[in-house]
Amino acid sequence: MPRTADHEERRSQIAAAVCQLIAEAGLDAVTIARTAATAGMSVGLVQHYFRSKDEMLLHAFRTVTARVRHRAEDRIRAGVAHQRPIAHVMAGVLAELVPLDETRRAEFRVTRAFAGRALDAPALAEVDVETARQLRADVARAVHNGKECGEVPPELDPWPAAVRLTAVAEGLAAQVYRDPDGVNELSAAELAASVLTTELATVFTGECRQYAGTTRNQGAGDAPNTRETRDPGDTGRARGTSPEDTNRTGGGTG
Amino acid sequence: MPRTADHEERRSQIAAAVCQLIAEAGLDAVTIARTAATAGMSVGLVQHYFRSKDEMLLHAFRTVTARVRHRAEDRIRAGVAHQRPIAHVMAGVLAELVPLDETRRAEFRVTRAFAGRALDAPALAEVDVETARQLRADVARAVHNGKECGEVPPELDPWPAAVRLTAVAEGLAAQVYRDPDGVNELSAAELAASVLTTELATVFTGECRQYAGTTRNQGAGDAPNTRETRDPGDTGRARGTSPEDTNRTGGGTG
Repeated sequence: MPRTADHEERRSQIAAAVCQLIAEAGLDAVTIARTAATAGMSVGLVQHYFRSKDEMLLHAFRTVTARVRHRAEDRIRAGVAHQRPIAHVMAGVLAELVPLDETRRAEFRVTRAFAGRALDAPALAEVDVETARQLRADVARAVHNGKECGEVPPELDPWPAAVRLTAVAEGLAAQVYRDPDGVNELSAAELAASVLTTELATVFTGECRQYAGTTRNQGAGDAPNTRETRDPGDTGRARGTSPEDTNRTGGGTG
Repeated sequence: MPRTADHEERRSQIAAAVCQLIAEAGLDAVTIARTAATAGMSVGLVQHYFRSKDEMLLHAFRTVTARVRHRAEDRIRAGVAHQRPIAHVMAGVLAELVPLDETRRAEFRVTRAFAGRALDAPALAEVDVETARQLRADVARAVHNGKECGEVPPELDPWPAAVRLTAVAEGLAAQVYRDPDGVNELSAAELAASVLTTELATVFTGECRQYAGTTRNQGAGDAPNTRETRDPGDTGRARGTSPEDTNRTGGGTG
């Protein structure tokens, strides 16, 4: 028997190979033999870890949804640590779903392919439903926290707001995937920034009492995974904070 | 050769059989033989109309998207004829995408299955992209018209607004599909009404000058396809119109 660390490492490699195959050629292109070849393993070794193709697909789906979720959690942790306004953090969290770069585009293809298959595969559907519920619960919690700190009006029900915010992120992801060059002379990145900022501004209308008066522009270490086109949440100016607030170096560990 | 009317009728029957099979058992369940059996035709007759399974699937995808589109167009026509506020009409149009009844739930399954397959099938992807673009253009036109008549602020750019409105409808559809019983004690119908109304209210903030002073509560003939849980757009009271405004009989022809 291999050690547990090796075991998990192998399963990760296999999941990565499955995702690569789906992103390149679609779900129907995935076979145990091709996955083994892509992962540089023998068919027997893949079969040692996964007894069936369905089991292997399920693990791959879980892996890719967990990866998106971890990036979202990193952003939330960093936002708390660096006392960012919640609306700002949530813009980054929701943008993790939008295929604005190759990584997220591959992830979108994989999750969409699985969502299609999940219509008639209860185990996959469960992952799809659970992932969506977790994100919605995260957003509802963020809205709830916003009420406590003054960013959200006290009378607002967090649940319809969370449905609306996650719906717009999911639908925006589909539109950016279909029209990666943007719409009507607005680039996909500009559209995503505009849509998420406008949407969040309908919920997060106030300013956080907790952070009022504290320095918000710490710079380094704030946003793991920050890349050029990555952060439609960087709209400090539009929200009335200082221009320096948008000038972050993103030296995170993600 | 059959007459053209027969020809189209046969193709429609085949498309309906394909959609029924997908809605019941998924895209992989569709074969020419099963489609023929479901449509009550011989395999040879199906093959007379469609030379391959791919051609048959493409026609079925076009048929189901055209059906949703026609319902949307019916709503727009009825809205114009009966001088409804644009926001009200658009709530109905966007709700056509949300699987709040069995018809729309079957349509959602079919379009989602096709969207998954479209990732690696250019002909299907083209239908998917074109359908989404048409809806977005319809919504952008509605926002533009809203600016002209005073329902929308003059400085608002219709395109990001149209992306946002169609995104929320598409994402809401996915959430209602995953959680048909609703979220946190709000039913799916209540959630859909709340989300669409709130979203539209961020764009359509004014009142139509054109219809100001005219009678808006005509009653019958307004909304084709109106059913009990069908019309989250029926929020006349919330928008300040008379209660009678919501009491419509929906004697349309759709």
